[in-house]
Amino acid sequence: MAAMHPFLELIRQRTSVESFDTRPVDEETIRALVEDAACAPSSFNIQHWRFVAVREEADRNRLCRAAFGQEQVRIAPVTFIVLGDLQGLDKLPRINREAVEIGALPQGKASAWERMAAEIYADPQLARDEVLRSASLASMTLMLAAEARGLASGALSGFDAGRVCADFDIEERYLPVMLIAVGYPADVERKQQPRLGVDEILNFDRGRRF
Amino acid sequence: MAAMHPFLELIRQRTSVESFDTRPVDEETIRALVEDAACAPSSFNIQHWRFVAVREEADRNRLCRAAFGQEQVRIAPVTFIVLGDLQGLDKLPRINREAVEIGALPQGKASAWERMAAEIYADPQLARDEVLRSASLASMTLMLAAEARGLASGALSGFDAGRVCADFDIEERYLPVMLIAVGYPADVERKQQPRLGVDEILNFDRGRRF
Repeated sequence: MAAMHPFLELIRQRTSVESFDTRPVDEETIRALVEDAACAPSSFNIQHWRFVAVREEADRNRLCRAAFGQEQVRIAPVTFIVLGDLQGLDKLPRINREAVEIGALPQGKASAWERMAAEIYADPQLARDEVLRSASLASMTLMLAAEARGLASGALSGFDAGRVCADFDIEERYLPVMLIAVGYPADVERKQQPRLGVDEILNFDRGRRF
Repeated sequence: MAAMHPFLELIRQRTSVESFDTRPVDEETIRALVEDAACAPSSFNIQHWRFVAVREEADRNRLCRAAFGQEQVRIAPVTFIVLGDLQGLDKLPRINREAVEIGALPQGKASAWERMAAEIYADPQLARDEVLRSASLASMTLMLAAEARGLASGALSGFDAGRVCADFDIEERYLPVMLIAVGYPADVERKQQPRLGVDEILNFDRGRRF
């Protein structure tokens, strides 16, 4: 039997942590994590994800308050506010131009994508759904990349989105999707929470009997 | 400089594919992929994700029609309908009981989680947001796990959710979040779509100037 791919170990090793070492995460590493995250796929390759890296102590305290006092946001040397751009479509013509130029996308398909995307995302609920999806795909990639780079992470979806936007000058077009606290792991035991058995979450052929 | 972790190569190698080899994906591999996907984190560890693995030819054709004729769903030996359980909270007491038993969660925290989750997810928009988030985190993990297992994948968010539910006996409590076509890669060149530069998607400290 072939050895397990290191990725399959990585996902089993990752846990959501609440404590971090005090060692800072440098700017180069923060940029690398965002580049990693952006390898995720997105609808029509719109890449709705945007990131605000919060590092200053005063900002971490403010973010912690907006996250109902969840301490990992105050303790972590950096927390990413992961946003979804509800008007991400604006950048699609430029993204597609580059894709056509490098031969990754035929011109006809690029035009069709722009037409279809404009039609679909005219519906505000579908637009909101899509930024949640895309930003979450990037968030998962970021958390795993952190793990691969020797860091640890803890994601939070429980926070006051309005207050986060007000406190961090985030325009209305950006929906806060998740906070991800990142830092070097503290020297504490990490235990993954238990998971439902595969038979409780997987059906073949039809959706009945979950 | 340390060698790049294989995960960081994996995310750069992955592309969304539309063609697959005809080789089937066996049941054991399908189950393994779902177990991998379930390593993702979720809000309060509710694990809102559910999966329907569609393999039969007639079903693949029906799913392809519900996905507006996107061919990868017909061609792939298996497509996962990734669902989010809007009533996923139901399983939380049992999940927590196990977590407390194995020492992964203190009893006090378990009770607090159940109270908080019930309060938050009484809001239907927040409940919908959360299943999109959690199911997307699992979806990203599944796509990367597929890559690590020598498979390829293509995710789709453009489909008629009502029709998917009707055709595959999916109850109303489950929100279809994504379709993920999976199979062995066809022998064609794979080119990742271009990505926005890191400076276009990352800000430090504040949200302005994206």
